[in-house]
Amino acid sequence: MDVPTLVERARRGDPRAVARLISLVEDGSPLLREAMAALAPYCGNAYIVGLTGAPGVGKSTSTNALVTEYRARGKRIGVLAVDPSSPFSGGALLGDRVRMQDHATDPEVYIRSMASRGHLGGLSAATPQALRVLDAAGCDIVLVETVGVGQSEVEVAEAADTAVVLLAPGMGDGIQAAKAGILEIGDVFVVNKADRDGADATARELNHMLALGERREPGAWRPPIIKTVAARGEGIGEVVEALEKHRAWLGETGKLAGRRKARAAAEIEAIAVAVLRRRFGDLHGDSRLSALADAVVAGEIDPFAAADQLVEHA
Amino acid sequence: MDVPTLVERARRGDPRAVARLISLVEDGSPLLREAMAALAPYCGNAYIVGLTGAPGVGKSTSTNALVTEYRARGKRIGVLAVDPSSPFSGGALLGDRVRMQDHATDPEVYIRSMASRGHLGGLSAATPQALRVLDAAGCDIVLVETVGVGQSEVEVAEAADTAVVLLAPGMGDGIQAAKAGILEIGDVFVVNKADRDGADATARELNHMLALGERREPGAWRPPIIKTVAARGEGIGEVVEALEKHRAWLGETGKLAGRRKARAAAEIEAIAVAVLRRRFGDLHGDSRLSALADAVVAGEIDPFAAADQLVEHA
Repeated sequence: MDVPTLVERARRGDPRAVARLISLVEDGSPLLREAMAALAPYCGNAYIVGLTGAPGVGKSTSTNALVTEYRARGKRIGVLAVDPSSPFSGGALLGDRVRMQDHATDPEVYIRSMASRGHLGGLSAATPQALRVLDAAGCDIVLVETVGVGQSEVEVAEAADTAVVLLAPGMGDGIQAAKAGILEIGDVFVVNKADRDGADATARELNHMLALGERREPGAWRPPIIKTVAARGEGIGEVVEALEKHRAWLGETGKLAGRRKARAAAEIEAIAVAVLRRRFGDLHGDSRLSALADAVVAGEIDPFAAADQLVEHA
Repeated sequence: MDVPTLVERARRGDPRAVARLISLVEDGSPLLREAMAALAPYCGNAYIVGLTGAPGVGKSTSTNALVTEYRARGKRIGVLAVDPSSPFSGGALLGDRVRMQDHATDPEVYIRSMASRGHLGGLSAATPQALRVLDAAGCDIVLVETVGVGQSEVEVAEAADTAVVLLAPGMGDGIQAAKAGILEIGDVFVVNKADRDGADATARELNHMLALGERREPGAWRPPIIKTVAARGEGIGEVVEALEKHRAWLGETGKLAGRRKARAAAEIEAIAVAVLRRRFGDLHGDSRLSALADAVVAGEIDPFAAADQLVEHA
């Protein structure tokens, strides 16, 4: 199928066309540029919600419950589940992902897992382009689910309109270790597994930490903390209300446009850097970088001078 | 003090000159290029050992104990402690770093903390240049200590000749979450706090995991697992023996030269990309990237075409 036909079908809601287009993204296909150019006029309507949290907090279950809730509200949904994988083995870290089979046969729900291979942090380098496909395919909401390891929360916040940080009781260490990052990126906090011991304590601790860092300006967004039992759908309606509230706040303050512009700039820059890196890569082939590396190891030249030579010939 | 004088004094072992040069690196000083050029002929002698592990395993205590051991063997030592910090707040995540005061007055030990600001992962972008300073200053060994969060282990492995992964008993979750990365980057594994319950179980579990992934080729390196109580110096001699063994193995197999060349190539590439990014940044100023981002958000152009325009004008 050629790209215009694919794009046409994806826009009419054909899930196989959507899947094919995301595969073009994942594979870095030579057709990717043509596809992105064809999709561009239809992008910008989807609302992007990022979900992150440590392993075990119930991200997939929460995503599943959110899909159910949004479907009940008549929304078309995309889900992008980004798996962290070892840059060495290429193997997925988590084998126990809930398959979200509840929604497997719903034509208004697109679910896609992507590997984050070769990219530091939890988000795939291809994520922004995959989001464009789901956006152009008419999704009202796209949920981007990623495992919160180290700095990937930050990436989620940058990729999303609204960032949801999930916690669960009894993961105190996780909160401690991650709190510096978590506090500043969460637009909405969810304490899942709220039927377990310690849920109130976790919510209280979080509330305390948020209060310490609170911005005092009038009109500033105060991230809500919502308790859920995602496996039973409890509290999920409240989460969706909070997401809608944040979306409205972003719109009223003009921050939505700002976030999206910053995101587009970052995406352009990342592609530009990749283009240039590929040119350097080609120089590997003709052994210029290799020769420069040898010269640096031998102490004949410093790495800055070597970089200048590389750039000059790029 | 001018750069040639600084370099001259650093090479004679003046700790203040070493500190000044590392500050030039950290600050991205305009004098940095001149300094790197002047240092280049004196680099390549230090052996770089990376230490990583989750918060709480005793990295700083272990580093301290290793310094004591190497000093007893008459080696000159550099320590580079890289703090992960929030890209938003700029604040350090860990406030409890052991100050390694045991060695504060030893003229043969250089200790330096660096922030990892603005850089995803645990290692500062400036680390390779700081390593060059310590190398040229005549350090026999440089220990690079970094907190293992997510993918930063991988960076440590790439920056070091030998990568040491530290674990401690009772951090099972940490092992589970990180095992995919840990197993493949550790050249030497250390189970610290071995006087605590569960040390044997941790070592056994690790051994089991390593056996599963073991390479069967003859002559392949089999990462040893060493139990230590770093606070009392127990097992540290063994760790140093293991490091020496790995170093010898790298040398005999030609892998040391390979690792160092790959590192130099990565360093050159990173600087080249930074140079080009700065050019893009200048375009921020004249608002070209800003206009391109607006056009992408409006769907008038796709990000690949925008990137092409950016690169064309870089």
